[in-house]
Amino acid sequence: MTENKRTEHKRTEHKKAADNVVFVGGKPPMNYVLAVVTQFHNGANEVHIKARGRAISRAVDVAEIVRHRFMSELKVDNISIGTEHMQSESGDKLNISSIDIQLKR
Amino acid sequence: MTENKRTEHKRTEHKKAADNVVFVGGKPPMNYVLAVVTQFHNGANEVHIKARGRAISRAVDVAEIVRHRFMSELKVDNISIGTEHMQSESGDKLNISSIDIQLKR
Repeated sequence: MTENKRTEHKRTEHKKAADNVVFVGGKPPMNYVLAVVTQFHNGANEVHIKARGRAISRAVDVAEIVRHRFMSELKVDNISIGTEHMQSESGDKLNISSIDIQLKR
Repeated sequence: MTENKRTEHKRTEHKKAADNVVFVGGKPPMNYVLAVVTQFHNGANEVHIKARGRAISRAVDVAEIVRHRFMSELKVDNISIGTEHMQSESGDKLNISSIDIQLKR
């Protein structure tokens, strides 16, 4: 449970982006679930759950867990997918898929 | 290339569901990309790309590859996410996330 209590810090650590955004990476889904719930409890009316590559599946898990276990009043307002162009360590171009799931009160 | 030519059969093998649906599983994304493109070439006006669990990321890859490399006229018409309730081999209940990406001409 110590881990869960540190979620707030972890979120800041991930990426200090615009508020109302939770970037899902490789950690256990519950870390991100709590980050999303915290944002709503702090007054946000909508939260974007974003992820790239293999973390996309986890982003969907996070959205579903938030809606079904914690805040059943939330709706999926919009889901968009896209492709980001990145460079691998060896200098090759890489296309990586991304998702943005918007939950709304 | 032999593998690609067999895509049509493989699709039927996966699951002979309603037409206009491609179920994405654990095979290389290009198998599913070709299944989607084939459906459009056979006259479909919309195709649903569906996946569960970890294959969700691959379903997004498939939709993005189809749109960007093969059929740039397609649009993402709707994306929905959900949770399916399954039973593990040991009899436990499992919740698994799912996605349905609808591509439209």
